[in-house]
Amino acid sequence: MRPTMKDVASAAGVALKTVSRVVNGEPGVHPATAERVRAAIERLGYSRNESARVLRRGRTATIGLVIEDVADPFYSGLSRAVEDVVIEHGCLLLSGSSGEEPGRERELVETFCARRVDGLIVVPAGDDHTYLRPELEAGTPVVFADRPPGAGLDVDTVLADNAGGARQAVRHLMAHGHRRIAFLGDDPAIFTAAERLRGYRDELGELYDERLVAMRAPSAEAVHADLERMFALDEPPTALFTGNGRYTVTTLRALERRRVALVGFDDFELADLLDPGVTVVAQEPAWMGRVAAELLFRRLGGDTGHSEHVELPVRLIVRGSGELPP
Amino acid sequence: MRPTMKDVASAAGVALKTVSRVVNGEPGVHPATAERVRAAIERLGYSRNESARVLRRGRTATIGLVIEDVADPFYSGLSRAVEDVVIEHGCLLLSGSSGEEPGRERELVETFCARRVDGLIVVPAGDDHTYLRPELEAGTPVVFADRPPGAGLDVDTVLADNAGGARQAVRHLMAHGHRRIAFLGDDPAIFTAAERLRGYRDELGELYDERLVAMRAPSAEAVHADLERMFALDEPPTALFTGNGRYTVTTLRALERRRVALVGFDDFELADLLDPGVTVVAQEPAWMGRVAAELLFRRLGGDTGHSEHVELPVRLIVRGSGELPP
Repeated sequence: MRPTMKDVASAAGVALKTVSRVVNGEPGVHPATAERVRAAIERLGYSRNESARVLRRGRTATIGLVIEDVADPFYSGLSRAVEDVVIEHGCLLLSGSSGEEPGRERELVETFCARRVDGLIVVPAGDDHTYLRPELEAGTPVVFADRPPGAGLDVDTVLADNAGGARQAVRHLMAHGHRRIAFLGDDPAIFTAAERLRGYRDELGELYDERLVAMRAPSAEAVHADLERMFALDEPPTALFTGNGRYTVTTLRALERRRVALVGFDDFELADLLDPGVTVVAQEPAWMGRVAAELLFRRLGGDTGHSEHVELPVRLIVRGSGELPP
Repeated sequence: MRPTMKDVASAAGVALKTVSRVVNGEPGVHPATAERVRAAIERLGYSRNESARVLRRGRTATIGLVIEDVADPFYSGLSRAVEDVVIEHGCLLLSGSSGEEPGRERELVETFCARRVDGLIVVPAGDDHTYLRPELEAGTPVVFADRPPGAGLDVDTVLADNAGGARQAVRHLMAHGHRRIAFLGDDPAIFTAAERLRGYRDELGELYDERLVAMRAPSAEAVHADLERMFALDEPPTALFTGNGRYTVTTLRALERRRVALVGFDDFELADLLDPGVTVVAQEPAWMGRVAAELLFRRLGGDTGHSEHVELPVRLIVRGSGELPP
């Protein structure tokens, strides 16, 4: 059904090799002949099969991206930045969401590898990545973003300063007079959640109280129950530090306009429009995506230096909720 | 560097054809031999090149998706749903953002076609899609989502009931006593914006006043200027209808807590947390993505019936802002 190079050759009354030369921009074709070939291409609607062409050169000109969920604004921001860099390099982006399931992460990565992506950017869900060894040994560059790989894998990473950001959040709340600061965060099996807990704990020092810590997947019910429990304590929290964007939103909803100081990790749209505005420790997902993709293309360009470990700074954005008094 | 089928054959001491039979699950190999081959595959870290394999069968087992911007929550929700359906069908998703530029839309679509995607889902930025004709004639199914193709292209479409949703919004505001209802929406060259304007205008009838309409790309400056102009009128608007999620957020920010009734097209996270909660006409981007992808796979499965035109209903969600009195 689809016209082939042979069809173009017959239509133009030239040899197959001549068509190939014109299509690939090689010299040695008389201008008038080239014109006739181009007219036949246009008339027949011929287009070169790029997948076959790149494959013959041992590439696929595709990059694989595994994230947690493209419907989460953090990851969609990261995806868009990766996509832009990938397209700038004349490649295409294959992407998939792991849904925070290690099995699905591995399935996606292995599917991408079986398709022979030229390189991979992975936000891991699991903590065992030894399955990637053969792929790395075969020369496929891999960059981990947002979270590092499991033990024993020496690859480039781009992470945010999670612990530092948490320390900054706690320090800010303490500077506003708070001593009872609760932490609501994701499952500590997730690297970023564990790191933020570490920063929170370090900064609190003697003031740390495990009864003010609740870590599990964010659901309305879980957050509601955790807050109820904490507010029923003899010394309830006067401030909250929420461990990521989803957690902040779920917590704000559960608080039902109860005024309590709050600093969230991750910025989110409309944080400025709430009353009070929500003070956050902001990461820049687009920056993380761009840095990861550029690192990957440097490897694809032949850089075989030691693995790089980039830590991106985060910044406190003051909007009101983190400045409420105890 | 990467182990080949030939390497596996040498390592296992069998013929190439035997390895091929084991890899492809074909019969005729003695269990003990198959076991030896599998052990060699495991030891060498061999994996079949799926891109080459599917290509030999005239497919790529990839679907191309062109959207406006994956960083926009409407499109990231749609993307995630498309991705899920694509993966359920054993395919992978190539996606790209047009940034609302017709040239980039065409470039992405043509790149996907040159890579021989098995099918395409397009949220168009432009209104001329005659360039897709050769691809359609070559048998590649294409589904347009959110917006229809330009004239002369007979393909499946999945659209929301834009005009009906706008009528619903205006009717709701009128039922709450409003007669001066302004419309702030995107460039009317965008199909959805034009359709929403049409519904707004139809429902207002005699009350329509073009001075209460402002349509252009949403920027803080544009919205601010448009609101200033409208509120300076002798009969200023007492209610606003905003044409999409981005517009609603930009308008809320520009209003700076000025209390005026508002209904927005598109739901958004935190709409319930603002004060008052924001009444919206909600689409379901994930539903749109799923329907579009399922339609595409029906075509890939051999359905050659007439093109289908699905219109998804929208629904009003009452939260407070749309019920404020004049």
